[in-house]
Amino acid sequence: MNIQDITQEINGYIEAENSDAIRIALAEVHPSDIASIIQNINPDKQSYLLDSLDPETASEVYFELDIDQREEIITDLDEEKIADIADEMASDDAADLIGELPEDTAETVLSKMDPEEAKDVEPLLLYPEDSAGGIMQSELVKVENDTNVRDSINWIRLIADDVEEFHGIYVTDNKDKLLGFIPLQKLIIANPSSSAQSVMEELEVSVTPYIDQEEVANIFKKYNIVTLPVISDEGILLGRITADDVIDVISEEAEEDIYQYAGLKEHLHPIYTPTYERIKVRSPWLLLTLVGELLIALIIIKVFEPTLVKVAILAAFMPAIMATGGNVGLQTTTIIVRSLGMGTIKTKQIFTLIASEMKVGLALGAICGILSAIIGILISYNEPQVLKLGLAVFLAMLSATLATSFVGVAAPIILQKLNFDPAASSGPFLTMFNDIFGSLFYLLIAMLIL
Amino acid sequence: MNIQDITQEINGYIEAENSDAIRIALAEVHPSDIASIIQNINPDKQSYLLDSLDPETASEVYFELDIDQREEIITDLDEEKIADIADEMASDDAADLIGELPEDTAETVLSKMDPEEAKDVEPLLLYPEDSAGGIMQSELVKVENDTNVRDSINWIRLIADDVEEFHGIYVTDNKDKLLGFIPLQKLIIANPSSSAQSVMEELEVSVTPYIDQEEVANIFKKYNIVTLPVISDEGILLGRITADDVIDVISEEAEEDIYQYAGLKEHLHPIYTPTYERIKVRSPWLLLTLVGELLIALIIIKVFEPTLVKVAILAAFMPAIMATGGNVGLQTTTIIVRSLGMGTIKTKQIFTLIASEMKVGLALGAICGILSAIIGILISYNEPQVLKLGLAVFLAMLSATLATSFVGVAAPIILQKLNFDPAASSGPFLTMFNDIFGSLFYLLIAMLIL
Repeated sequence: MNIQDITQEINGYIEAENSDAIRIALAEVHPSDIASIIQNINPDKQSYLLDSLDPETASEVYFELDIDQREEIITDLDEEKIADIADEMASDDAADLIGELPEDTAETVLSKMDPEEAKDVEPLLLYPEDSAGGIMQSELVKVENDTNVRDSINWIRLIADDVEEFHGIYVTDNKDKLLGFIPLQKLIIANPSSSAQSVMEELEVSVTPYIDQEEVANIFKKYNIVTLPVISDEGILLGRITADDVIDVISEEAEEDIYQYAGLKEHLHPIYTPTYERIKVRSPWLLLTLVGELLIALIIIKVFEPTLVKVAILAAFMPAIMATGGNVGLQTTTIIVRSLGMGTIKTKQIFTLIASEMKVGLALGAICGILSAIIGILISYNEPQVLKLGLAVFLAMLSATLATSFVGVAAPIILQKLNFDPAASSGPFLTMFNDIFGSLFYLLIAMLIL
Repeated sequence: MNIQDITQEINGYIEAENSDAIRIALAEVHPSDIASIIQNINPDKQSYLLDSLDPETASEVYFELDIDQREEIITDLDEEKIADIADEMASDDAADLIGELPEDTAETVLSKMDPEEAKDVEPLLLYPEDSAGGIMQSELVKVENDTNVRDSINWIRLIADDVEEFHGIYVTDNKDKLLGFIPLQKLIIANPSSSAQSVMEELEVSVTPYIDQEEVANIFKKYNIVTLPVISDEGILLGRITADDVIDVISEEAEEDIYQYAGLKEHLHPIYTPTYERIKVRSPWLLLTLVGELLIALIIIKVFEPTLVKVAILAAFMPAIMATGGNVGLQTTTIIVRSLGMGTIKTKQIFTLIASEMKVGLALGAICGILSAIIGILISYNEPQVLKLGLAVFLAMLSATLATSFVGVAAPIILQKLNFDPAASSGPFLTMFNDIFGSLFYLLIAMLIL
């Protein structure tokens, strides 16, 4: 049965207010498909559907819902039910859920949760959402260094139900200071009477909780690991981050960057997001850019009109100059943003980078400029000042690519220095900057030459 | 000691041709840092440095090198050494390495490899690089369903050295057909005399080898798993894909998309990539776009010059119209490309999607158009045909946003249908299309009205 058919069936049960039937109908459906179904039904009924699920299923469905929608949906449930759902989640997920609730609700939910679970969740609420502490979970398996392998396995037997997925156990001293790690594949074949300390591997890498999640992702990439311990400044074991969390982080960050290029701050579903919402999210950047472009119009009218009246064909090359400058700037800023993200360049190399990119920009501008000048001369050969026009096109192309190469390097690096996302330098901002420079440089050069 | 100091030290040893000293100096350095050092030295000496490392270290360094550089560096090594390096790799990595060699070298290397290793690698060479088969590894732990837990653990003891990281064992029937999976955390506490069949979990999900790696990544995201089995159409277990491979895939795919937006086909390091290479990679898209923009120039000169001579200030609003159309198109195509990637829309919904996006485009165009018309009228109030100019600006803005909304939906969906990457519809192509439509529509409308 496909999702559309199930959705139709569910819609029937919702009308009949038959939550048992809903639960039964969705028993064999994957949580992410249930999330799709929820997002496909009438927004007024979405909370009812989530509420109809048993807490365990609801806990698996919740994070498959779009981030904006789920906050609204969950807030409509009563706090007892939210607490039941949070109890079923791993501590990192429960902390994220509670972090998304209004403050009052969050406190009530925390107080209604199973005290054992709440104890795991509470410390996690202290860390920023996009930090190592924000994505780690408290549930893990640890033993003291003098525990032997047999007792370690017995300990696993005792707590196996509470810790969801683990691939090894952490070894600490008697003050909870992290000493090492024993992968299960090693523990399973170790001598039962050996001490944990003698079997463990030294840790290659660990992080502290306030490190940014993007840096955590880079560590997973660099070390090819599936789990990473989080420790305090004093070396106390606080939690662990697993590869599946990192997969989510990388997807989110990549998506964020891609949206930023288009001046969007979130995903807008082309069918399900209400039209009004889509217009509201998309218009600010458009209007901001438009202001810059209308400024161009103002300057052209006030300053360059006499030149344009004399040589109207100047206007013909404005699109070519703006597009070339814009494309070179986009290439440059993309290269710089990615290099910063991968850590292969440093912000203090700014002058080397500007020089290096402007050299390439100069070459690209020269190639495009010569080509445009030649074509310009050929197609307007009967104009009186055709050679001067060609020269103006060439020089304008050159200055536009130099200017956007400069800004393409400087803008992301300065943003990074100021702790903003360097990717914000691309997209509509770059288009606007480039259009202003491209068109005005060109007309200025033309006015001086002609 | 930081990387720059080590690089300097290594440069000295390279001049003295002292490969032992190099090996000792790098003994404690992380493979990805060794890769940075290699990329920082004279390109002529890079192969010598890699050759100086022992095969195991070299195998860890290789995939940390930039994809374009590593092919050149490895090809300079003799085939015996390449085979030794490949022997140290997991089968999926060895297959990737061999896939990157010239055909002759590849065959020789395969023939010089340890026959056991080569047997694991050879079948993997059959699958496309970006398929499930291309990223899976053959090394895994499997037992037949009637094996008991004790014997399974003994089997792990025997082969633990050959399989690098595993978090569970696969259970097959006596024809190698996959039946289930036992996570190590379950195996370690299971009754030693239970059969594998009785302890195993049923598999939630598996893939066949020709599935695209992007789909594999979506499965990891959806199911929150750290390992995924690959089976033949008949259900025979062929290999497994691990979360660290998927992390690499997601990063690569995201990077590819981002580069495509900027008309780049690969990463260009702003300092280390040679200038000539950077110009060569960046110019094709620029020139292609430029051709489109020069076509605009040609049409303006041949068709619209009389209009422009009469009303020169028309040119003042060209940047605003092109930028608004371009930005709306970029937003639309970004939304569609991401929705296709996430699987939340289907290509067969193309008409619904076009209608839905054009509705939003119409609204955005109207907002921007009215604003521009008002400002246009205000700043050129003393022109004779100012109201008509305002009307032309408004109508042009509206048609530009409608046209780019249409193309922003249609282009990625058609590309997807034709099995191209839908992200190719964004970037320079979109800029060019939009500039052509934006400027020419505008001048056409103006010519008709004025």
